[in-house]
Amino acid sequence: MKFDVFAKDCPSRAVLDHLTGRWGVLTLAGLRKGPARFNALRRRVDGVSEKMLAQTLQALERDGFVRREVLAAMPPSVNYSLTELGESTADHLLAFIDHVQARMPAVLDARASADAAQAR
Amino acid sequence: MKFDVFAKDCPSRAVLDHLTGRWGVLTLAGLRKGPARFNALRRRVDGVSEKMLAQTLQALERDGFVRREVLAAMPPSVNYSLTELGESTADHLLAFIDHVQARMPAVLDARASADAAQAR
Repeated sequence: MKFDVFAKDCPSRAVLDHLTGRWGVLTLAGLRKGPARFNALRRRVDGVSEKMLAQTLQALERDGFVRREVLAAMPPSVNYSLTELGESTADHLLAFIDHVQARMPAVLDARASADAAQAR
Repeated sequence: MKFDVFAKDCPSRAVLDHLTGRWGVLTLAGLRKGPARFNALRRRVDGVSEKMLAQTLQALERDGFVRREVLAAMPPSVNYSLTELGESTADHLLAFIDHVQARMPAVLDARASADAAQAR
């Protein structure tokens, strides 16, 4: 079977949405720094709500990118880490993030020009 | 200045959102196949509404990834293409899309296991 994210009914489209949705990229990239409990991960992904992080993790776990382990501690706690599939995927996203961050001066220049043209 | 997408108020966070939002990835990747008029691009990005594609293009144009040219034809038409910044960014996204598409069998296996465990 050939998968094609450009086709709206291809199952790869939904997976791409989970990975690249508002919080998918940052959650995967955040976990690439190492396994984390929910609250620690929430601090890494600055600005995410509890509900959105829980939903994002659930989708990424179901798709096999994230592993969820309940630790037999007192009080019990839950640890999140990347699977092998999650690691290779996160590496792509981190390279992409580096690319975007490095090009921010060009982006800000483009914006300033666009906004100035708009104001004219 | 150091940009950090993990910080919610860093301007790079908004740019990442434009690029990876529901339609940003597919619009950039779609334009990597070559310049296109609005309706042709809309056919490439299967499932996008007119409104969402217009909004996505506007944000990507303002950030300097997409170039918009009004052609002096009759009737007048508008052509969209990638800037150099858009091309290098789209190449990252296409590599990412290839990665995801190639791993879909593993993703579907993971999902089937997760759903079976859920049903138990």
